[in-house]
Amino acid sequence: MQILKSTPKQDGFYMPGEFEPHVGCWILWPERKDTWRLNAKPAQKVFAEVAITISKFEQVTVGVVNKEYLNARKMLPGNIRVVEISYNDAWVRDNGPLFIKNNRGEKRGVVWNFNAWGGIDSGLYYPWDQDSLVAEKILSIEKIDYYKPGIILEGGSIHVDGEGTLITTEECLLNKNRNPDLSKDEIEEILCEYLNIEKIIWLKRGVYNDETDGHVDNLCCFIKPGIILLTWTDDKNDPQYEISLNAFERLSRETDAKGRKFEIHKILQPKPLYLSKEEASGLTIGETSKLRLPGDRLSASYINFYISNKGIIMPKFNDHYDNLAKRKLKELLPDYKIYQIYTREILLGGGNIHCIVQQIPF
Amino acid sequence: MQILKSTPKQDGFYMPGEFEPHVGCWILWPERKDTWRLNAKPAQKVFAEVAITISKFEQVTVGVVNKEYLNARKMLPGNIRVVEISYNDAWVRDNGPLFIKNNRGEKRGVVWNFNAWGGIDSGLYYPWDQDSLVAEKILSIEKIDYYKPGIILEGGSIHVDGEGTLITTEECLLNKNRNPDLSKDEIEEILCEYLNIEKIIWLKRGVYNDETDGHVDNLCCFIKPGIILLTWTDDKNDPQYEISLNAFERLSRETDAKGRKFEIHKILQPKPLYLSKEEASGLTIGETSKLRLPGDRLSASYINFYISNKGIIMPKFNDHYDNLAKRKLKELLPDYKIYQIYTREILLGGGNIHCIVQQIPF
Repeated sequence: MQILKSTPKQDGFYMPGEFEPHVGCWILWPERKDTWRLNAKPAQKVFAEVAITISKFEQVTVGVVNKEYLNARKMLPGNIRVVEISYNDAWVRDNGPLFIKNNRGEKRGVVWNFNAWGGIDSGLYYPWDQDSLVAEKILSIEKIDYYKPGIILEGGSIHVDGEGTLITTEECLLNKNRNPDLSKDEIEEILCEYLNIEKIIWLKRGVYNDETDGHVDNLCCFIKPGIILLTWTDDKNDPQYEISLNAFERLSRETDAKGRKFEIHKILQPKPLYLSKEEASGLTIGETSKLRLPGDRLSASYINFYISNKGIIMPKFNDHYDNLAKRKLKELLPDYKIYQIYTREILLGGGNIHCIVQQIPF
Repeated sequence: MQILKSTPKQDGFYMPGEFEPHVGCWILWPERKDTWRLNAKPAQKVFAEVAITISKFEQVTVGVVNKEYLNARKMLPGNIRVVEISYNDAWVRDNGPLFIKNNRGEKRGVVWNFNAWGGIDSGLYYPWDQDSLVAEKILSIEKIDYYKPGIILEGGSIHVDGEGTLITTEECLLNKNRNPDLSKDEIEEILCEYLNIEKIIWLKRGVYNDETDGHVDNLCCFIKPGIILLTWTDDKNDPQYEISLNAFERLSRETDAKGRKFEIHKILQPKPLYLSKEEASGLTIGETSKLRLPGDRLSASYINFYISNKGIIMPKFNDHYDNLAKRKLKELLPDYKIYQIYTREILLGGGNIHCIVQQIPF
């Protein structure tokens, strides 16, 4: 498809909130053996469950590397579109395009550069050459033209309210392993131009020990314009306490692009979870793989859910707070069906439901 | 997408004539080294020229194996959709789906079994496992549900007029290397049911030395209901003479599904063409490859053209009769633009323009 030389702001395109209507979404099929233990078989079951659950609400497309095509096709029902595509890992929130639209409902894409969450020195693997082509391939399949801002950015590092506000973290977007030559002002300018944003809210850090360098989508999210959910702990000895408190304070001081104060809801995190010895031993580590060691703290957060058309697909951890998180969502979004899926196998890979889905707005 | 258990005839779907309007078409990118000489580079140029020419009239999608993705993307302009897909060879007329429609313009697909033009003993290569998935993958990308008749058939072995008539050859469809357990009646029944056909016209053989076992699409075609073009030679010493004469006589005796006599136009073939020593030496032959030897007669025919939306994209051979063939098409289809492309590099691989394109009706 065509690469557009103007910008979305010039052309009247913007990124809607995830809570706005979708025509569908994309998921990629997990298979790399240094991210997904036991040849990715346990993760594939959970990805399939996520895909099937979302497909109750919208069209789901699962992209899959060729050697896994028949396996994925067999594990997924016929109402899910399965499409061959190459990638290095299955985080389409981050290696996929962002979809933008205009007021006539026309859609375009934004294709960012990608360096596997930090490049050769601090990224999670090498090479990432196939990840780098995922966004353009998806847009080609969907017949959608696109813009290329020319900077490194993963979709999970930002959240928007669809009304001019973007939230991100300094830990990620100002990290020297992403765009070392760009100042904060220059990054702001690009975000404003390519996502049609009026106001950017910078939080300090993402969830503790999150290997993405603090993606905001594991920390907090919009469920409507002006309403934010934030992962939380009351345990002052947990390193997450400081992070969530700082985010809460910054958000409390801020207003959005429309001048509204935020309504902030704290969602208590599960009790700390760690990679077990058995789980770690199921990984096949290569020369450039991130090491995942027994005892590593997992960055578990209920916030890492996906908002589908009138459905919430959220993690559970078999934790005391699973029900509390679900009840809170139900209370805030009474029109939505809430599904909880036990996603420890996704968490072991370094993310959760939101990280593995990319929505296409209506 | 969904596999439908009923049949197109039951559901009111039929295959339109190629001369009816299209939403677009598919082409696959050539790359295997035992079909396409010199690492497929010369063939790629010609495929690109065909794709670019057709794209003047309709949306063209080029499917490409992953290792050739960047090369194909670079050689094709942005208005051509390039999509990753695996295959064993680039003949989408034969390994792709057939597209059918109903009177409300809804579309479905028909996915045939495929055995590389004759299976282990007399087919052109082994394996064909990736070819066998092409049709379903294309339909998934296009979001089109489909039927699976469960017999072996290549799209190039049939032509339809969109009004109940199908033409094929005994040499191909009754060949023991395709569906040895099915009688002629049983094959007729399946064609009638899955392409919604009322009458099947059996010609004896296809073009001389055609490695497809006589695909009809190299011998004759409909340009409108009731009007047929037939490749021809006046040279009684050419083995093609007998074949074309026999086809002419059968067609002359027949009527179509609507009871019309055929108007048959003879298109003089180019003078016999042969694989050169230099061309043969550019192939990299593997253990299961068809041998292509210097001096092999090439099955050159002007009939192997593609009818696009108000455009004809047809071969030329740098032959005395190139202009005659083009003028004849122009005379018969005055509303169409006629483009001739020098396609010897496709011919060397065993087919021509029609064999490398699969249309999607409007």
